[in-house]
Amino acid sequence: MRAIIGTWKMSFDGVQETFGMLKTGAPAGEAVVRAVSRVEDEPAFHSVGYGGLPGKDGRVTLDAAFMDGRALRMGGVMSAENIRNPIQAAYRLCGRKTNCLLAGRGAEEFALQEGLAMRDMRTPESVKRWREAVAAQAEKELEAYRGHDTVCVLALDESGNMAAGTSTSGLFMKEPGRVGDTPIIGSGFYCDARFGAAAATGLGEDIMRGCLSYETVARMRNGESPQQACQHALDALAERKRELGEDAGSISLIALSPRGEFGAATTLPVFPFAAGNEETAALYIVETRDKTGFRRAEPEDLAAVD
Amino acid sequence: MRAIIGTWKMSFDGVQETFGMLKTGAPAGEAVVRAVSRVEDEPAFHSVGYGGLPGKDGRVTLDAAFMDGRALRMGGVMSAENIRNPIQAAYRLCGRKTNCLLAGRGAEEFALQEGLAMRDMRTPESVKRWREAVAAQAEKELEAYRGHDTVCVLALDESGNMAAGTSTSGLFMKEPGRVGDTPIIGSGFYCDARFGAAAATGLGEDIMRGCLSYETVARMRNGESPQQACQHALDALAERKRELGEDAGSISLIALSPRGEFGAATTLPVFPFAAGNEETAALYIVETRDKTGFRRAEPEDLAAVD
Repeated sequence: MRAIIGTWKMSFDGVQETFGMLKTGAPAGEAVVRAVSRVEDEPAFHSVGYGGLPGKDGRVTLDAAFMDGRALRMGGVMSAENIRNPIQAAYRLCGRKTNCLLAGRGAEEFALQEGLAMRDMRTPESVKRWREAVAAQAEKELEAYRGHDTVCVLALDESGNMAAGTSTSGLFMKEPGRVGDTPIIGSGFYCDARFGAAAATGLGEDIMRGCLSYETVARMRNGESPQQACQHALDALAERKRELGEDAGSISLIALSPRGEFGAATTLPVFPFAAGNEETAALYIVETRDKTGFRRAEPEDLAAVD
Repeated sequence: MRAIIGTWKMSFDGVQETFGMLKTGAPAGEAVVRAVSRVEDEPAFHSVGYGGLPGKDGRVTLDAAFMDGRALRMGGVMSAENIRNPIQAAYRLCGRKTNCLLAGRGAEEFALQEGLAMRDMRTPESVKRWREAVAAQAEKELEAYRGHDTVCVLALDESGNMAAGTSTSGLFMKEPGRVGDTPIIGSGFYCDARFGAAAATGLGEDIMRGCLSYETVARMRNGESPQQACQHALDALAERKRELGEDAGSISLIALSPRGEFGAATTLPVFPFAAGNEETAALYIVETRDKTGFRRAEPEDLAAVD
């Protein structure tokens, strides 16, 4: 069995390509790194990699992580600038037994030493949006943070290994140094080849409160399907937030089992994701009100979502 | 009920003082911040705060986190320099709904803006040790990393709220930017006032592989005692490491329940901790071979440990 799942419409091209790689025997880790790199390289996606929207200070700071489910090891970079493909730095850090999670300049120096490509991650479009937000902020508080969209990809390969990868440029107009859930093991991602993999996208500060990816994999370990695990993990945090007088927020979860079944849950009206586990990869959606699962996306489902 | 527990002998003075504060009605958060700050301020402890041993580049970079168990919120700083009391920056960040986890310069700027004291964290002693290590490294690879000792404090107050705090200067001779488990929710700490709190000390890269603090609290949620939860969480990761052909490593866990019971487990021969939950605070030890629990420390237990 081989299978792959990625968050948002933006992951579809990479998921489709790397599902093909998995079918010809590629390792899960290679598929994940390739699928995430494609999203990082595309300037039209404003929350990941090149073209990602800057923080308050005009800097684009990147968070990414990679986890190998058989070795039970991770690598990650946080609050790092100018690394063209942060997921590739995270992948290489996963080979280390110590010093596998690096922040800021240390992460950048690691990428340089590894010979990875560096790049000014700003585009004319992202600089324009940042200038507009700075001007708007001078007038009044920005209404809400936008751009919680992290690319997360989970894969299962023919050998039974699993991998997880995540990458984001974080919240638009974030404070300098802000890190969300994306590079945080257990919150943004978790992957254990015996039990399954999970990853999260949405407001990182909320995702971390429930360690949602670890909770989802722990539920699969206890016998739940990926769909049950995502739904139950998300419901528990949403319920807790309601008790605290908070709204449900914007959180979406994906999961993949060692048998290639996938699952997804969301607090958004609609959350689209890409996945392949039989012959072809396709786009799916899951809706908040739909507690029983996901379905293939129709064109009208996708008109208004990323 | 009020109770407090802290890792290592170094936490004893702070635990004893703040157990007194808790008995007169102080909130758990205040007790935690005070107990951790005392360890940060003491130059004789070489793995936390002032006097903490530098990384490879001679810089002392600090990681700390704070979590409020009733609000289910955290704050944290990572890879930050020159903040006299990183735990106090983490505590203030816990009040934020976004931007609550800051790395590097962003964390330092936050501390400055909050009016927190800044300090050169090096001491003549720590600089001397660093120079010796650099010289030794020029000769041959350093034999092993030392100084995995994080201060972690968990507290329960009269109102039933719980809090967790952690602080470390990280591994001696770490790579620039390296972050361990200390500021990582679910790995270095987790605190939910309904179910309990847990925290970890040891090699952060290993602790993160099992999200050990979240796993420990999840086990308490499922009805295990703090002692069972620590032991089972640690055993599962140690068993997995054995299957992967790795040694057990150096990991210790502490936990506290909402009823004031505490627990601890370790892969070290002996792990000392300080705790108070009846009338007085005392030093305890737990041993690897001791699967049934901890005991009051005798002077001969403490001769060779931190």
